[in-house]
Amino acid sequence: MRVAVIGVGLIGGSFALALREAGQASHVVGVGRNAANLKLALERGIIDSTAPDPAAAARGADLILIATPVAQFSGVFTNLAANLDKKTLLTDGGSTKRDVIAAARKALGRKIAQFVPAHPIAGAEKSGAAAASADLFRGKRVVLTPLEENSSQEISRVEAAWTACGAKLSRMNAEEHDAVLATVSHLPHLLAFALVHDVAQRENSEQLFSFAAGGFRDFTRIASSHPEMWRDICVANRDRLLDELSRFSGKIAEIKQLLDSPAELQKLCAEARAARDAWIRSS
Amino acid sequence: MRVAVIGVGLIGGSFALALREAGQASHVVGVGRNAANLKLALERGIIDSTAPDPAAAARGADLILIATPVAQFSGVFTNLAANLDKKTLLTDGGSTKRDVIAAARKALGRKIAQFVPAHPIAGAEKSGAAAASADLFRGKRVVLTPLEENSSQEISRVEAAWTACGAKLSRMNAEEHDAVLATVSHLPHLLAFALVHDVAQRENSEQLFSFAAGGFRDFTRIASSHPEMWRDICVANRDRLLDELSRFSGKIAEIKQLLDSPAELQKLCAEARAARDAWIRSS
Repeated sequence: MRVAVIGVGLIGGSFALALREAGQASHVVGVGRNAANLKLALERGIIDSTAPDPAAAARGADLILIATPVAQFSGVFTNLAANLDKKTLLTDGGSTKRDVIAAARKALGRKIAQFVPAHPIAGAEKSGAAAASADLFRGKRVVLTPLEENSSQEISRVEAAWTACGAKLSRMNAEEHDAVLATVSHLPHLLAFALVHDVAQRENSEQLFSFAAGGFRDFTRIASSHPEMWRDICVANRDRLLDELSRFSGKIAEIKQLLDSPAELQKLCAEARAARDAWIRSS
Repeated sequence: MRVAVIGVGLIGGSFALALREAGQASHVVGVGRNAANLKLALERGIIDSTAPDPAAAARGADLILIATPVAQFSGVFTNLAANLDKKTLLTDGGSTKRDVIAAARKALGRKIAQFVPAHPIAGAEKSGAAAASADLFRGKRVVLTPLEENSSQEISRVEAAWTACGAKLSRMNAEEHDAVLATVSHLPHLLAFALVHDVAQRENSEQLFSFAAGGFRDFTRIASSHPEMWRDICVANRDRLLDELSRFSGKIAEIKQLLDSPAELQKLCAEARAARDAWIRSS
């Protein structure tokens, strides 16, 4: 396959490396805003060539992955729309799906069937081509949120590409996807950013950080994630995140009450521990 | 030294192993509620013998470490008080200091100078003698919160024991300690317990957990911590934790507002990331 990657960062770069390692990519062309990052991607053998914009990269491509922050998808789809060959399939690495699909419908019109939306649930707090790895998706989930316009053949071809990367495929609709990810990914990211920001703003922040240990380090690991990417996710999934943040505020109020009921507080901690340990064992 | 360890869990067991490895302990006697755990501690060579209660373990001891959940300290101090030899020093592994010191003052009376309070900032989500390791304190901070009654010689002896375990020593007063730890340790623990509990209670919890990935795993690692230990810490540090929880609710309200101001939201994320990355580099 001739593959184009729009946004050669952690996700896009890893997709290219994994397809190469699986012998599925004969040529990979990359597009990106950051010249130094593209240069590194060429040096690391992630891409074979670069193109000035998505439309140029799309020429002759069998498969295009869009892996920019989600706020840029609209512009990418618009740029691609005019010259998209019928044989070319599109997929993406966006962490939200309702906004991505809406942008695709608007720009691609009747070519929408060529786009099979996907979300690889495999991140890291590192970003850029430097962080890309052929193993990033190995054993990780990739959620497809197929459109009613997609043919089963189109879905299968995109599924095959992600499977070749080592991913475990599953399907959801976009609404459900954005709700589930708001709970288990977007909310914890915002809470981690919030805690670190709050600590950093205090007068005694230096002292506080100097006594923070392994628990704080792991709890806040995701606060080292890419700020622009997370801004875009939060804006795209705003309604769901507002619900989640309100709900979590309610949970904090419940915990404050339980500070007066030690036995119930212990019960909550024990139930949480049991639920997490069961999850870890099964995953 | 003849050493007594009251509560042979992760902290107590690791203290014994580390002192042995440093050649500082000729005999270690252990006390605990859980017969199976004490048996394991004997089998693993963590302790040489057991005693039925703290007072019995204290006979002839040069150094006693109290490392039970903090709500039990009052009973332990009372049991120790009657027959505490003048040569015997006490230290502890409690995660809160105001309550521990108050309990010690009440029970020990004029022998209070023999107690040099300490908090090893080295935990893990594992507990019990099975999790104990000679390396647990290596390179980790131990905070002493000395009392005005302690002589410099008493402080030095306790400091030397923790140093022999590989720890980096520092000092604070108990008020300051409990405030700092509420922010960087107790609050994140409660938030992690709260998030897992909330997810576990939802109708679609199975689906939610099945799409949770590495970010959720690390964010919630500390929700696999010991429920009784954390109940006791929360009760002991209740006033500080109420402050922290209220403050964090305010931060969540700020974040909700920022969902309408993408540029400011990105700024917050970028500042948090920069602060965390600087901390990681320096630690």
